[in-house]
Amino acid sequence: MRILGVDPGSIITGYGVVDTCGGWVRRVDSGAIAMRAGEPFADRLAAIYRLLIDVIDRSHPDVFCIETAFYGKNVQSTLKLGQVRGVAILAAAHRGLTVHEYSPREVKQAVTGNGAAAKHQIAYMVKKVLGLRAGFHRTDEADGLAVAICHAWRSGAHASGRPVTWAEFTAAHPERIRK
Amino acid sequence: MRILGVDPGSIITGYGVVDTCGGWVRRVDSGAIAMRAGEPFADRLAAIYRLLIDVIDRSHPDVFCIETAFYGKNVQSTLKLGQVRGVAILAAAHRGLTVHEYSPREVKQAVTGNGAAAKHQIAYMVKKVLGLRAGFHRTDEADGLAVAICHAWRSGAHASGRPVTWAEFTAAHPERIRK
Repeated sequence: MRILGVDPGSIITGYGVVDTCGGWVRRVDSGAIAMRAGEPFADRLAAIYRLLIDVIDRSHPDVFCIETAFYGKNVQSTLKLGQVRGVAILAAAHRGLTVHEYSPREVKQAVTGNGAAAKHQIAYMVKKVLGLRAGFHRTDEADGLAVAICHAWRSGAHASGRPVTWAEFTAAHPERIRK
Repeated sequence: MRILGVDPGSIITGYGVVDTCGGWVRRVDSGAIAMRAGEPFADRLAAIYRLLIDVIDRSHPDVFCIETAFYGKNVQSTLKLGQVRGVAILAAAHRGLTVHEYSPREVKQAVTGNGAAAKHQIAYMVKKVLGLRAGFHRTDEADGLAVAICHAWRSGAHASGRPVTWAEFTAAHPERIRK
């Protein structure tokens, strides 16, 4: 199964595409798009929509996952975030993809084992889990991948009727352990 | 000049297209789209985007105007409203229309002379100003038209360098006065 994960933000939106088979995950594509200062907001929304349509058209994901909003922010940024979420979900709808939502807490819990993990911890674990050598230019890119990994493990757990644990993962893939 | 006005809502989105020449306004098209209960949110967003694209493609407006958010609501509905606003603005961007924003207060002030006017007052004045015989099925339709009228009068005032008053309007269009 191929999963597109999106972490929408009022300033930077990260995305990540992963392939999954059981609990195993592999990166296919990832990146982040930043709002350019001074650019009209309509153009920014169009750029995010275009980027996600392009990602979907070149990687053909089976599902679309998006992080739900963090409600602690102010109303102005919640509205902006809503606008970005709206065009991201529209891109999924326009390509006939099912939309799954995960809270930031669920994503952090799935990827790091701690629902209150810091941004750098998520980036660290995403890099480890995907066996990437280079780090991320922006943590938002890791966040997009984290959403996709979260769905891979959650849906894998649902499909097999049992949780996918690290022990199972390392037993199934000894070649992925760095000695 | 032809103006498309949109009043986005988390439940109902109203729109109205008017033609304007100076302070004179005429209705071209208007309506409202309601979220159907139980429909996936992605499908609802796609329906709003489709409706606005269809309205733009059949009426060819020159400008797109949207009401800014009312910030007194709760965070959950602000986020939903943001999502609807996002796809509405995207429709404008995809058809190359400039986006103008007006606050609810500006719209009410322009159409009724009172920035704190009630919904039924706006519907009443929109009906009068446009010389419509029938009322509106939904006040949201009147709200969409009100946004367009607000822009017509605001931009007309800017263009001529003076405000467009009722006295000027009635002097210029005696045939519009019902004896």
